Amino acid sequence: MKIKQNSRIKQVEVAEEGAKNTRKKILIGPNDGSKNIIMRYFTIAPGGHSPKHSHNWEHLVKIESGKGIVVGRYDNKAEVSEGCNIFVEANEMHQFQNPFEENFEFICIIPNIDKV
Amino acid sequence: MKIKQNSRIKQVEVAEEGAKNTRKKILIGPNDGSKNIIMRYFTIAPGGHSPKHSHNWEHLVKIESGKGIVVGRYDNKAEVSEGCNIFVEANEMHQFQNPFEENFEFICIIPNIDKV
Repeated sequence: MKIKQNSRIKQVEVAEEGAKNTRKKILIGPNDGSKNIIMRYFTIAPGGHSPKHSHNWEHLVKIESGKGIVVGRYDNKAEVSEGCNIFVEANEMHQFQNPFEENFEFICIIPNIDKV
Repeated sequence: MKIKQNSRIKQVEVAEEGAKNTRKKILIGPNDGSKNIIMRYFTIAPGGHSPKHSHNWEHLVKIESGKGIVVGRYDNKAEVSEGCNIFVEANEMHQFQNPFEENFEFICIIPNIDKV
């Protein structure tokens, strides 16, 4: 068993092309012994967004704080906030945007396929 | 993409032997199209606890609200609260207890092995 404090986990800027004002922490991942699943925590600052992309793994998302816009495969948009969970299928185009004035924070869980 | 509101997800009492005052929601799981991962939300009321058990799948836990005690394989105990993440290895004995006066709430993520 391993117990980790969020406040002691390093936060890094997401450097991927198309990302803006987006930071990430690996809450639990391979370095903690988790072979199958990675739990990440994202903070998108006002004006920021994740890349608009698709990939062959799914996302399980739980909004933790603030609100944002999630963009789907048909450029459909939905406002999401604390209390929302989102499942993004593998190979589905998606983006998370924060056009609001407070940080937009969410957990994003993925299978461990060497993509953290 | 599927968006779900926590408030509209059914909460059920955990009926497993050894559980007390413990309720569960499936935030995202197979019924939402998630093939590999299940995200559950547990609420342990004051005086309650999960079963003390082990099983051949891991837990990725993030405390969401309140505080509790996590018991490890050597009967070692740690107090955990919001801001803590816990990784429980497969086959490791563990229990979550709430000896405090407020609800103890946490996300618990598992691989999808038909155990929800």
